[in-house]
Formats: sequence, structure tokens, C-alpha cells
Amino acid sequence: MGTGPLPSPPDIVRSAYAELIVTDLARARWFWVDVLGFVVSESAPGVLYLRGYDELTHHNVILTEGAEPAASRLAFRVRTPGDLDQAVEFYDRLGCRTARLPAGNTPGIGAAVRAEDPLGFTVEFFHDAAPAGRLQQRYDLRRGAEVARIDHFNIVVPDVQSAYEYYRSLGFGLSETIEDAQTLYAAWMYRKQTVHDVAFTGGAGPRLHHLGFFAHETHHVLRTCDILGSLHEESHIERGPGRHGVSNAFYVYVRDPDGHRIEVYTSDYYTGDPDHPVLRWDVSDPRRRDFYGHVVIPSWYAEATTVLDLDGNPRPIAEQHQILESSVGADGFRVR
Amino acid sequence: MGTGPLPSPPDIVRSAYAELIVTDLARARWFWVDVLGFVVSESAPGVLYLRGYDELTHHNVILTEGAEPAASRLAFRVRTPGDLDQAVEFYDRLGCRTARLPAGNTPGIGAAVRAEDPLGFTVEFFHDAAPAGRLQQRYDLRRGAEVARIDHFNIVVPDVQSAYEYYRSLGFGLSETIEDAQTLYAAWMYRKQTVHDVAFTGGAGPRLHHLGFFAHETHHVLRTCDILGSLHEESHIERGPGRHGVSNAFYVYVRDPDGHRIEVYTSDYYTGDPDHPVLRWDVSDPRRRDFYGHVVIPSWYAEATTVLDLDGNPRPIAEQHQILESSVGADGFRVR
Amino acid sequence: MGTGPLPSPPDIVRSAYAELIVTDLARARWFWVDVLGFVVSESAPGVLYLRGYDELTHHNVILTEGAEPAASRLAFRVRTPGDLDQAVEFYDRLGCRTARLPAGNTPGIGAAVRAEDPLGFTVEFFHDAAPAGRLQQRYDLRRGAEVARIDHFNIVVPDVQSAYEYYRSLGFGLSETIEDAQTLYAAWMYRKQTVHDVAFTGGAGPRLHHLGFFAHETHHVLRTCDILGSLHEESHIERGPGRHGVSNAFYVYVRDPDGHRIEVYTSDYYTGDPDHPVLRWDVSDPRRRDFYGHVVIPSWYAEATTVLDLDGNPRPIAEQHQILESSVGADGFRVR
Amino acid sequence: MGTGPLPSPPDIVRSAYAELIVTDLARARWFWVDVLGFVVSESAPGVLYLRGYDELTHHNVILTEGAEPAASRLAFRVRTPGDLDQAVEFYDRLGCRTARLPAGNTPGIGAAVRAEDPLGFTVEFFHDAAPAGRLQQRYDLRRGAEVARIDHFNIVVPDVQSAYEYYRSLGFGLSETIEDAQTLYAAWMYRKQTVHDVAFTGGAGPRLHHLGFFAHETHHVLRTCDILGSLHEESHIERGPGRHGVSNAFYVYVRDPDGHRIEVYTSDYYTGDPDHPVLRWDVSDPRRRDFYGHVVIPSWYAEATTVLDLDGNPRPIAEQHQILESSVGADGFRVR
Repeated sequence: MGTGPLPSPPDIVRSAYAELIVTDLARARWFWVDVLGFVVSESAPGVLYLRGYDELTHHNVILTEGAEPAASRLAFRVRTPGDLDQAVEFYDRLGCRTARLPAGNTPGIGAAVRAEDPLGFTVEFFHDAAPAGRLQQRYDLRRGAEVARIDHFNIVVPDVQSAYEYYRSLGFGLSETIEDAQTLYAAWMYRKQTVHDVAFTGGAGPRLHHLGFFAHETHHVLRTCDILGSLHEESHIERGPGRHGVSNAFYVYVRDPDGHRIEVYTSDYYTGDPDHPVLRWDVSDPRRRDFYGHVVIPSWYAEATTVLDLDGNPRPIAEQHQILESSVGADGFRVR
Repeated sequence: MGTGPLPSPPDIVRSAYAELIVTDLARARWFWVDVLGFVVSESAPGVLYLRGYDELTHHNVILTEGAEPAASRLAFRVRTPGDLDQAVEFYDRLGCRTARLPAGNTPGIGAAVRAEDPLGFTVEFFHDAAPAGRLQQRYDLRRGAEVARIDHFNIVVPDVQSAYEYYRSLGFGLSETIEDAQTLYAAWMYRKQTVHDVAFTGGAGPRLHHLGFFAHETHHVLRTCDILGSLHEESHIERGPGRHGVSNAFYVYVRDPDGHRIEVYTSDYYTGDPDHPVLRWDVSDPRRRDFYGHVVIPSWYAEATTVLDLDGNPRPIAEQHQILESSVGADGFRVR
Repeated sequence: MGTGPLPSPPDIVRSAYAELIVTDLARARWFWVDVLGFVVSESAPGVLYLRGYDELTHHNVILTEGAEPAASRLAFRVRTPGDLDQAVEFYDRLGCRTARLPAGNTPGIGAAVRAEDPLGFTVEFFHDAAPAGRLQQRYDLRRGAEVARIDHFNIVVPDVQSAYEYYRSLGFGLSETIEDAQTLYAAWMYRKQTVHDVAFTGGAGPRLHHLGFFAHETHHVLRTCDILGSLHEESHIERGPGRHGVSNAFYVYVRDPDGHRIEVYTSDYYTGDPDHPVLRWDVSDPRRRDFYGHVVIPSWYAEATTVLDLDGNPRPIAEQHQILESSVGADGFRVR
Repeated sequence: MGTGPLPSPPDIVRSAYAELIVTDLARARWFWVDVLGFVVSESAPGVLYLRGYDELTHHNVILTEGAEPAASRLAFRVRTPGDLDQAVEFYDRLGCRTARLPAGNTPGIGAAVRAEDPLGFTVEFFHDAAPAGRLQQRYDLRRGAEVARIDHFNIVVPDVQSAYEYYRSLGFGLSETIEDAQTLYAAWMYRKQTVHDVAFTGGAGPRLHHLGFFAHETHHVLRTCDILGSLHEESHIERGPGRHGVSNAFYVYVRDPDGHRIEVYTSDYYTGDPDHPVLRWDVSDPRRRDFYGHVVIPSWYAEATTVLDLDGNPRPIAEQHQILESSVGADGFRVR
């Protein structure tokens, strides 16, 4: 571990993709591709590369067959090839284990750097990406949720304040929070000009709470639900449709056959101005998690996906170090 | 009471309006007019006449100030003036108390007949109605939920089978049911060519469960919720937004300041064919009440509006005579 | 031909289906099924039976391969089997040639009566219809325009006033007109409780102007256009998307590979009340045909489908007997 | 004028606001505020400051009463206060006249630099901006088109290639073009992560073609049209609703009472990746300007707003130096 001030972080452009371990790839394909309508960019035995209809790089999600459900890495795109060296230096100084991957190690992705970050997640940085066919105006091909692109990673961490400070050191801006005078319960942080690339939910972690995907209109969110009801697969709908107070997103959360949580949402806002102001929600405002005041289903706070270290082993989960939002917020009872 | 076969019932065109007693008319006006966007057709001290933007007759709802919240009558339009005599004869034969009201007794409504029906509700029949200005294409005036017109009355009755048989004798068609081998838990019945003009929910009754209003698109339903969240009045949103399995309606239920329940929905279907088939939902299908499988909030089954007799006195409430849907349906627990 | 007053007309429930002759069934199937998303109820060599997702009877459209594009009949459903005899008597008295067809002559349709009506169209009446699977809640199957059901026939006639009087004698109600002090340029008439089952456009006739199909929301209309653009088949989009002043329908008109015109629309209104008022548009109001004031493309007024007589021969086309709306209306120039 | 390589340009964040001269402020207010629903941030005699519902800085448009309709400046926000000096240096070196404005010269805007740019437009750069109240979640206040924020300036220039090169020197990325082997007919360029902050239409210039405003959903675009039809002000709708091939935007163009052109659109895409690819449309593709293949109304190519120099005098208009897209594109005739 180095000493002195942290070096400049890698210049992160955006959250780009995640790799999820699924226990039955055929069934995962049914859910992600046939039902939700993700585009298959590439496939190989035991692995699928998926993207949304607006995505112009190779993939937003990798589904890899394995013994236990998990999230093996969260990948960020960086602005220049030199940012990879910057990433190694940055994480070295933090005392984090890193690894360099050659181009092509992941199909569609150039040389990459991975690190076990201070929060316990395996994060990846890459610059080069294979282009993908432009499908935004192939309305004839759209199916399911018609997701446009990946938008963000939501992670469960035992200490939201630490997560916030770490991502601030990576150059992320803060768009919204849930807090009270004592505690930061949740935070939304961004590099690209949307509400977030990463968000933190307080709880036993490190775990992946969900992957968030942007769709263009509310009717796409509703269609996702309608299709699941049609197939009598409505039990995959965990929460929503509804609108978040935080971010203004109109959302639904679905769970894939391995329990990985997927948010399909629409309607957040531009955050690119240099003095973009933070929106702070009080933990007692029942609208913060659901603008319509509905109680959040307990599984949404409690359940999340195990994450893997650089060697592919599950990370141990620490209990929360802070009071949980779900125990203090107005979610636990009806206001009426 | 007469004997022999029932006479022909009055030829009912559709559910037309309801009168609700509200305890604070200013606050009711705020909710119905300012928030939900109902059109004020006429007002007088202590009373408001409201309609939707497509409605071409005088009103869909009367809000009358009074001491206790209640529903004083449910009014149906009939095809000819002669149907009023038919109504008197029909209810006389049933042994039900009736009353004739002269034209103008209710502003905008011609001569009317009222009856205390066998289910305990005060129902009204009228033929003549004052025309109302055509506002459908006054998009500049639309606000709130942009409801188009009243669609149906949903009533709570202790014995759904009896309610079904009574409305069948009135010439109503059956569109959908919730049932199992033993019990009819709920039924939807129509005169106009939609899924229903009246529906029955099993429970302590007679009570009014809700008034249903049609809006043209899902975004109108969502806007209703968004406005209530904006005003921090989200506690008025009781249930939804969501889609019903029954009727396919995309719905939200809101409660006015007196607790009167209002459904704003869109997307049901045409039922005008002579052999329109019945859709029967099994009470164990979690999609019947919410196509997305979500648990119905208990208040939705338990709470409803007191109804008044011909003299304006509250009707006594009988406990249910049947097993309640909410105690046998899959609503009480998550499927996942 | 009989004498004396006309007998009671058959009790028509609604416009039910049309048969179109297409010159290349494979290409027609591509357009109607693959692109527009109609459901195939049944197929046989040289013929396809199609319906919308809400339709509960066998078909809304028959596509039959033939040498020249044409519309061979427009079919109405009647309320009782006895209405078939009523139809024979009615058209006999009018001096119109009729034919009786046994059940099964058209798959999915019971016994039928056809007539060469006074306007020169072959119309059919039937009561019995085979039920079709309920697909409204199979959102997983929906594609294309997601049309729900057939709504209306729009026909070109040389004398709109005569067409109006004939359909009035059949018991149709009048919902809207385009007129001036001298001339009735167009009229919309209904049996079911919507704006129309049949409408008349003045011009050389008899010809079929278009078949109108209802979809539930505006985004379905837009999706129809987006798909055609995606496939570089945008030349099939003749007019729209836009909103009609008349009927308030948000519409698009597309032309199939044989030039048959199809309207996909949403958002008209209920017309079931006994005193439903007529909405009369002045021919000089540029909003009557396009609520946004846009000029109607000339082909929309000029082109239409040849219709066949009872023997399958093309009906001769008479030039209009009246001044054409397109020559007097404000459509020919911009208001600005 | 300096020599040698150009200095680094100011670091532009986004297009931020424009000032338009209107001849009747009361009537302009009616159109922009009452009809289109823009938020009034501030007003003073002879001037209005307007913004969209998502905008978090003081204004997106200034409407100033004056003798002749014009656009007096197009303003860009820059990343740091130091970028103002950078702007002066940059334009000095280009030989362009500049002016420094103290903070508060424009309400809500800090110190600014203006320049008469090489294309003949008066552009402004500012860093400091007064915050504005967050209204995104005040759905109760929304009216009209519900525009969220300004998105872009579209300008008419006699030489699109030169405009492209100039904006490239300012650090703008290129998202889409209309071109053929010989000519660049139109180009879309961005700083923020959307399709454009500025776009060029070939024609007599310098003139302002339109201001583009983002709305969240297609129904907001349609509502804009519906309101204008409702008010019998449909002649303000110049073109659309429709979808652009370029940018995928679903659009409508309206003209304010002085003829200033306003685009309300939804649905473009993210352009923030370092290697974002250019989408090049051939000028012969009828979908480039209208994805549905409709002919572009001639006024849309021909008419535009005069621009003013630093002293407030109209800039002389040079005829186009290139073949115009409207004379070579497929817009002039129907494909069918």
C-alpha cells in the first residue's frame, strides 16, 4: 500500500456492464432474452452477452453459467487507455488487489484492470470496446421491456458513508441521498450525466442489490409487468410498478430465475452541470422510496446477490454497521 | 307485493351517476375538482355536480354536504320515459319501497323513480337528462386524472350469488367472475357494452365499495398518482397503480377526504355481442385482483361507504353470509 | 320489389368483418401479420382469417388471393337468428338481390344472408360465430399495431345524403357529420356504442375507403409507424399519425401491398345514450379531418378499393353526384 | 487577430438558453406560458425568463419585447469561471468581436462573454447561474407541453461544412449527418451527452432555425398538438407530430406568434462514450427528416429567425453557398 495523497483516479465514463453467475443458462436466457427482450450480442457455451436496444458497445450484461448465483464483477468504461494504469496505481495505493486482463479476455472488451475495491466488490475498468450494431431504430425487433441501455449498479454496503466517500474519491458526483441528522442511509452517485452510475443501500454486504436499465417510456415498464402476468410468471415481479421519489424514476423490480434483481425504469434527469445540486430526502418521508407512499416489500431490503472476489470466490458478508433505513423509515407502516 | 312472474324490468342503459355525502364540501371540492380534475357542471350551496370530460349529460357524481359520509343513491339511465313506470312495477312486485321524483328534483335530471332494492341500496332510474357541453376536445382544460366518464358502481354485499341473480333479473349480462367450485366470490355485470356497470365484492353490506371512472390511457392513471405524490397527499392512494386480471383494467384506487373510494382505470373491452362469453377466474389465481400478483392491501377488502335508504337514514350492515374471498384467495401471502 | 312501408330492418349489432381480395397472399400475410401483428385465426390455401387481440369471434378480416384487389363483402353481426329472415325481407322490399349462405360457407360463421345494397356494396348479415381464444391478456404475444378489434367500415359513395338515409333506415345512429348549408359531405353512423360502424366519404363509388381498427393507446399507433420506418417500408404510411377532429381518433392510415387502406386509431367515445347528440363539423373547419390543421394528402381522398357484387364481379363506379369535400374544404391550403 | 494554432476553446458544458425578441410580449406569454406551459422564473417590464420543469438554473429562454422578431444570442454554459477568459482569447484569435458582461447584466446569470462568431451568430458563455426551484416532481403544476429543459439550437448556415469545422474547433462531437458523396447537408453536434447541443441546416444565413426542448414522453408531444387544436390555434403547428430519422426524436414543430420555431421532442440517446460513432444519413433517404417518409413542409426549410449582432442590429443574410438539401432530398415528392 502506498502512502501520501491518493493519485488521480481513473477517469470513469460510466457504468458499462456486469457479469452475473446463473445456475441454469437456458432458463436465464428465457427470462432475459425471451421475456425481458434483451438483445443477444454474442453467445458461447455457458455464456451469453446481452445489451439494450440503444447500446452501441458489445454488451451490458454477461450471464455465465455456474454453480451458485453471484455477481462476479461490475465494469466501468474509462475515458482513455491510460486510465488503466491510473486504475492500477489508484487501487495499489488503497492496498487493493488488482489484476490486468489482456484484450479479448472478455469478448468485445479490450485490455482491462480489475480490483477488489475497498467495499469488497470486484470492479473492472476498460477503455476499448467492440462496437455493436445500432438497433435503436429497429422497432421491428423490439420485444419485452425494450430496455435501452444499462444505467447503474445498486450495491448493498454495511456503511453507506464509507461507500460515498470512496466513490467521491473516484470522482463521482452526488445527486440524491436519504438521510437524517445522524445517518446517511442511501446515496446516488454519477459519472455520466444521469442521476447515477452507482447507488448504495445500507445492509449486510458487500452484495449487489440490482442492475438498473433505462427504458424510454412508462408504457415499457408496464409492458414488462403485463408480459410476466400473461405468462403466469408474475411471481418474478417483486416490487412496482411505481415511481421513486429519489430520482423520479418510474420503476419495476423483477427477479430473474436465480433471484438477481433487475430494475427497469424511465424518467430521471440531466445532471451534467458543474454545480448540480444534491437532493436530500429525509428518511421519514414515505415518498422517498415510493412516491405514491406504498410500503416497500421486505424482500427488497433484505435480499441481494453474493459478489465474488478476483479468484471467483464469494466475498464474506459483513452485517450492517449502521441503523438500517428499513427500520427507521416510514416504509414499515401505512401513513393512512 | 305482487305475485306471479316478475314483470319486465326497466330497460337500463348504463350506470349514470351517484350521490355521495361528504362532510366538508370545500375539502371534497379540492380533492375531486382541483386534484382529480373533475368538471364542475353546476354548484349550489352545499352541493356540487361533477362530470368527466367525455360526459355529455349533466353529471356523473353529486357531492352533497352532510353530517356523515355516505352514498345516498346509485342512478341508472333508462331507455324510454316508460321505463320509469316499469321500474315502479318491477320493484313493487319485489316488495321494495319506491318513490317518484318530479323532473328537476335533481338538477339536470328529469322525472325519476327511486327504490330500496333487495340488496339494500337506494337505486334511481331516470330517462331525461340535461345535455352538457362537449369537452372531450378541450384538451386545454384537462387536469388531474382526466377522467372521461363514470363507468361502474362496485358494491359490497354479504351474498354475491343473490346480488348476481337480482341484477340478472334486471337484464344485466355477466362478463367476469371470481369463484371456486362452491362459491361465487365476485361478479362483474353490464348493460352498456363494457365489462361492467355494476360489480359485487363479498363482505359486510350493503355498502358502496367504489365508483369507477374511465380514463383513456395508462398515463392518465399514473398522472393521478404523480399529482398526489407531488402534493404530499400520497396517503390518498390506497392501491395501485396496477392491472387487474379481471377486466384487464389498469387501475388506481384513491380515497377522498371522507374515505369514499374512487377507481380511475383504463383498458377494458367490448361486450356487446349477443353471445359474449363469461371469463371465470379461480379464486386461487393471484392475478385475478392484481395481474402482477401483488397482495391486495387489507383496507381495500375491509373498508367501504355506508349507504342510505329512501329517507336518508343509514342502512344497517349485515355481516357476510359467505366465506370471504380475502380469506381464501392467494392475496394474503406472496407467491414467490 | 315490395311496396308499402319498409319492414323492420335486421337488428344489427356491429360491423364484424370484411373480405378483401389480395393479389399475393404471401405478401399480404407479411404486411397484415408480420408487420401489423394481426392474429391468424385460421388459414387455408389461398385464404387467411385474421382478428385483433380483443376479438372473441373467429375473424375480423378475410384475405383471399385473387386476380385483382377488391373488397368482396362487408359483414355485420345481427342480434338473433331471426334477423336473417328480416334481412331478406328488408332487401327484397328494397328490390335488392340477396343470397342465403349455409353455415360454414365461411369458416367460423353460421348461416348468412348477403345482399347487393342500394349503395352498390355487397353486405352480409350473420348471427352465429365461432368463438375465438381470448388473447387480450396475452401481452407476450402482441406485436405490431396490437389492434384490438375491427371498429368500422368507411365507404366512398357518390351521394352521402342517400347513404345516410339508407343506413338510418337500417337503424343506425348518427354521431358526427361534415356539412355546410347545402351539402352533407361525410357522416359517421353507429350501431354499437362507439362513434361508428360505418362512415361515408363523398366520391366516385361504390368503393371501400378503409377498414378501421381500434387500438388501446396512442403509443400503439406510433409503434405501427415506427415499425414501418424501421423496415424502410415507410411508403406504406399514407397519412398520419395525427388526430381527427371528427371522432377524436388518434390515427394512422397505412396501405397494404394491394393498396387496401387500413386505419389504426385510438380514443373515440361512448355513444350509447338514447339521446346521443350529433356533432356537426363545418366543412371549412381545417380541424375536422386533422385536428392539427394539416393538409390531407390527395391520395387519401382519391384512392379507394373496388367492391364486388354477389357474383364476384367488380361494381361499376359512378362519379360523385355532389360537390366533393376536398374541393371545398380548407384542406387544400395551409391556414398559416 | 492572432496567428498560430488556435488556443484551447472554452470548455462548453451545454447549450443553456437563448434570447428571442418578440413584438408583443403579452401574446408571446400567452403562447409560451399559457399554451406551451413554460415556467416563468422571473419577469420584468418588457421581458420574461422561462424554463422547463426539470431545469435547475434560472432560465432556458428570455423573451424580450422589441420592434422586430429576432434572436439576439445563443448562450452556452462553461465548466469553470476561467473558461470565460479562454473564450475571449479563442474568439480574439479568430478575429471575432467580443464583449464582457458583468454578473447580473442578465438576471440569473453571472459574468459572461459574448462574441460575434465566425458563422455570424452572437454567442454567449457564462459559468455562474442562479439556481432555480426543483419542479420536476411538481406534477400538480405541469401544463401544456411539459417541456423538461432546453436541449439544442438549430441554426441555418449557408455552408454546413464550415459550421461543422468551427464547432469541431470548439470541442463539439459529431453524432449524425445528412450527406452525399459531395456535400454535407446537415450535421448534429454535442457537448452534453445527448445527440446535440447545436445542429446546422443549410440555407440563407445566419438565422436561427429553432430552439429544441426535451419532454419525457411521446404523449407530451401529442398533448402540445391537442391543446393547439382545442384552442383553434392549430395554425401554430407547422410540422409533425412525427419521428425524425436523424436522432430518433419524436417531434412537433410549432411557431410562436412572431414565427419563432420551437421543437418539442422526446427520445434521443446517450452519446457520452469516448468513441461514440457517427450516424450518417444519405440525403436520398426519405426517412432522414421524417422516419415515416412524409414530405417536409416547405416553410420548414425556408423560414427562420433573423439574428442580431453584439450591438443588437440584424445580421445581413448570405444566400446559401451549397446545394440545398431540400432541392436534392427525396422530401419533394412522395415515394409511393
